[in-house]
Amino acid sequence: MPVLLAPDQAPSLPDLLSAANTVGLDCVVVESSVSVTPRIGGIGSLAAAGAQEISFLSNPKLAAQLGDCQAAAVILRPEDWRDFQAGHADTPKWRTVLCSQPYLMYALLAQWFDQQRIARMATGIHPSAIIADGAQIDEGVSIGPYAVIESGVRIATGTRIGAGCFIGPGCTIGRDGILHPRVTLYQDVRIGDRVILHSGVVLAADGFGFAPDPTREPGAWAKIAQLGGVVLGDDVELGANTTVDRGAIEDTVLGNGVKLDNQIMIGHNCRIGDHTAMAACVGVSGSTQIGRRCTIGGAAMFSGHLTLVDDVEVSGGTAITFDILKPGRYTGVFPSTEHKQWQHNAAALAQLAQLRKRLRAIERALDA
Amino acid sequence: MPVLLAPDQAPSLPDLLSAANTVGLDCVVVESSVSVTPRIGGIGSLAAAGAQEISFLSNPKLAAQLGDCQAAAVILRPEDWRDFQAGHADTPKWRTVLCSQPYLMYALLAQWFDQQRIARMATGIHPSAIIADGAQIDEGVSIGPYAVIESGVRIATGTRIGAGCFIGPGCTIGRDGILHPRVTLYQDVRIGDRVILHSGVVLAADGFGFAPDPTREPGAWAKIAQLGGVVLGDDVELGANTTVDRGAIEDTVLGNGVKLDNQIMIGHNCRIGDHTAMAACVGVSGSTQIGRRCTIGGAAMFSGHLTLVDDVEVSGGTAITFDILKPGRYTGVFPSTEHKQWQHNAAALAQLAQLRKRLRAIERALDA
Amino acid sequence: MPVLLAPDQAPSLPDLLSAANTVGLDCVVVESSVSVTPRIGGIGSLAAAGAQEISFLSNPKLAAQLGDCQAAAVILRPEDWRDFQAGHADTPKWRTVLCSQPYLMYALLAQWFDQQRIARMATGIHPSAIIADGAQIDEGVSIGPYAVIESGVRIATGTRIGAGCFIGPGCTIGRDGILHPRVTLYQDVRIGDRVILHSGVVLAADGFGFAPDPTREPGAWAKIAQLGGVVLGDDVELGANTTVDRGAIEDTVLGNGVKLDNQIMIGHNCRIGDHTAMAACVGVSGSTQIGRRCTIGGAAMFSGHLTLVDDVEVSGGTAITFDILKPGRYTGVFPSTEHKQWQHNAAALAQLAQLRKRLRAIERALDA
Repeated sequence: MPVLLAPDQAPSLPDLLSAANTVGLDCVVVESSVSVTPRIGGIGSLAAAGAQEISFLSNPKLAAQLGDCQAAAVILRPEDWRDFQAGHADTPKWRTVLCSQPYLMYALLAQWFDQQRIARMATGIHPSAIIADGAQIDEGVSIGPYAVIESGVRIATGTRIGAGCFIGPGCTIGRDGILHPRVTLYQDVRIGDRVILHSGVVLAADGFGFAPDPTREPGAWAKIAQLGGVVLGDDVELGANTTVDRGAIEDTVLGNGVKLDNQIMIGHNCRIGDHTAMAACVGVSGSTQIGRRCTIGGAAMFSGHLTLVDDVEVSGGTAITFDILKPGRYTGVFPSTEHKQWQHNAAALAQLAQLRKRLRAIERALDA
Repeated sequence: MPVLLAPDQAPSLPDLLSAANTVGLDCVVVESSVSVTPRIGGIGSLAAAGAQEISFLSNPKLAAQLGDCQAAAVILRPEDWRDFQAGHADTPKWRTVLCSQPYLMYALLAQWFDQQRIARMATGIHPSAIIADGAQIDEGVSIGPYAVIESGVRIATGTRIGAGCFIGPGCTIGRDGILHPRVTLYQDVRIGDRVILHSGVVLAADGFGFAPDPTREPGAWAKIAQLGGVVLGDDVELGANTTVDRGAIEDTVLGNGVKLDNQIMIGHNCRIGDHTAMAACVGVSGSTQIGRRCTIGGAAMFSGHLTLVDDVEVSGGTAITFDILKPGRYTGVFPSTEHKQWQHNAAALAQLAQLRKRLRAIERALDA
Repeated sequence: MPVLLAPDQAPSLPDLLSAANTVGLDCVVVESSVSVTPRIGGIGSLAAAGAQEISFLSNPKLAAQLGDCQAAAVILRPEDWRDFQAGHADTPKWRTVLCSQPYLMYALLAQWFDQQRIARMATGIHPSAIIADGAQIDEGVSIGPYAVIESGVRIATGTRIGAGCFIGPGCTIGRDGILHPRVTLYQDVRIGDRVILHSGVVLAADGFGFAPDPTREPGAWAKIAQLGGVVLGDDVELGANTTVDRGAIEDTVLGNGVKLDNQIMIGHNCRIGDHTAMAACVGVSGSTQIGRRCTIGGAAMFSGHLTLVDDVEVSGGTAITFDILKPGRYTGVFPSTEHKQWQHNAAALAQLAQLRKRLRAIERALDA
């Protein structure tokens, strides 16, 4: 991992634990033969952490890595510590931090280091940013170089707009959000609080709406102007190069807490329910509604005008072409095999309806 | 929908209809008990339109929404209006607009509102745009802030270049086009008239061309320089974050009227015929030729060096791995089911060639 | 192909061949009745090359195009030249260049023309580029307009940073690389020598890491801060709009010579081995490790936490959901057919486990 804090800025182990442990976990440093209190400049895995880093054991399968771990300190559960001691006579090199939930403690530490990093980012409005007259930029908003903010925009306090972002006319962005460099918002996007948009995100480009226009030429298309907007709830996060199109008439809407990974495409008029999460490369065709708390695997694909209820799980790579009205997990992936075997199976699959007929014929013959 | 025009800018209903109805549809406002002529600031769906919006009924399944519709006016066919009157004694709140083609009338209205929106966009060349000496920018071209226009570029009248676009050396762009913010054109792209490129589009990045170069290391690749360009016909529209690579030697070509949705990838040397339309997330490998008037569903995928004739329809999620020489619809999608059922079917599929053999053995035994 | 060099800049045929032939191929111009030594301004295919272009015959299937070829010169193998002469009494219009490896000679010529193109690109640091104090920019680095270089960045000699690129704090970039316009690097990216990043690439956006956080609301997610970086080896090339996420704790790593096409997504913590190449639209979920010299077809998809050994080939459109521990080719694609036939086969597939049971029942009955 990159060094996050230089030694002179790194906190001591006890200071770090008390600063990061905002939820009051049971977290105790075991007194040991390691006499110096280490300074902690970052987090590392058990296998890779160095003498300025803290590590943790959350997956018991990795316990074998404790013996050679070079970290300054390791967080682990009391029972895992007992097991380690049972198998090792020597005191480990690392300071021992006992905690009933090592993974949660890691998450809190990671958050703390991330906060230090964010705190070092430039604040204020860069002089090269172009902000239209009448845009309403609250106190405490940061705007990076070469960003362009159009008329009628409102941005609430604490939000950071990265270098080269374009915020189209009439957009509103809530408080404490982060738009990383080169995010593009067309006009009429409304964004809640604490929203994170990664680089390359494009919100409210025109939906894909065309009507056949044979008056010009056979096969020609007439564009249907896309007049709706895009609405994101609070606590939404969208990954790099993800796109959400504007609605044709009404808005395209992502509920509170929706998390989308990179390179996802949400078509016009879609509605995605609160806390639904999608892994990368998913495509959702226009006017499809997905419920709350759904989890969608990478590269899944949805036809348009579908309805999915709450609490649906879709496996990666699955094409959903019909409504899903019952919670549960749904899958449709061609199982991969060695190429030769696939060739045989695929050839048979191309005749499958015929095979079924032949089977039925045998059954009838035997019945007779 | 976002309010498009404030009340003091919104036209009266008769003025709007005559301004938008450029093709002379039969479109009549029914005199009714609603005495005030409403002003129309936008378009809404039957379910969501408010008192400043016009709505329309084109899908008869939605007729039940007419009763509670809050729109200022509703466009519908005379027969649907008669049906409504037969079931409702009271005069509706909305003004009635009779028209034989409500959807087309809606499309015209949407276009009219879009034109007002475009007319409010800034025009002229922003002082921060960097334009190389010798670039030929016609009168009536708009160039947004922080755009960069390289040497030898020609842009014809009426075209708008959004903020932060990069137009590489020697590109030519026809008239009345729109490049939304942050479009990137490498050198040697030629674009026709009335072309729309959405944000994040990248044209003429290097095609993926490498030759094995074992002289350096086993498995190493030598780059094949990509010297062709990209050519787009008239009336092409490309969605957000779509990429079209430059040809290896000759150009990659998209014909007139081609419409590509978001996040589509067209490989080098491809040729896409006039008026072919592709939904989002499609990938076309290099040197594949697709005919005219084809419609390609979302997330479809094409191997390289294929030929598809005109008027082919490919279903979403389908992988095309061989030439298609006959018009028609082609599909290849694993049907999704509940996960448990999929597991059973997938396990059987992995043995399908064996199952066919077993079936054949039985048939032989019974024949004997 | 676009004209690459105007006639007054184009070299004569012998000059071009000796300048481009850096590896000393056996390459001889046949003396013929064409008296004037042509000047060569570019490369064209046999079918499309004009009188200022050179062409080549590497695929014997195209030999029939030699007769009508309008190129100034054609490179071909001696045996193909003998075959041509046997079938044609007249001297061709083109100068004949005999070479035992026409495709390699073409690659060298393409490289030479590309070098001329690159040599014409602007050099130096554009005055509008914003470079933080303390960034270490070597002599001979070019930085385009509106690029933003943050603190702690180091860029080695010969590297070109395109217009509008954003290089986050602490990034290091090796020598002789090319970052095309609008590439975005978050902080802590380390890049080797001779790396090419195409427009729209985003490196080190946050990995997709969330933990359930029921303390706020059922289904809510807590963000896991992503503290790792991204490391690219030497000679890596990444296509337009490709994204590589930063690691959660350790780095996401792409080895030397890795070549990724456009719109590829590499999740956090992945490790991709040296010289592995992936065609467009591939998605690799987090923590998956892919070996060296693998070739991955377009739109293939990988689940997370997998291991693939060296020298694995994955067919386009295939979903890999388990470890691959043996080199070879792997495939899993639903074969596409005419839609009607697919409907029958898909319906049978949905009952495949049942069909297997029925087959087994018949086998038992016949055995009995």
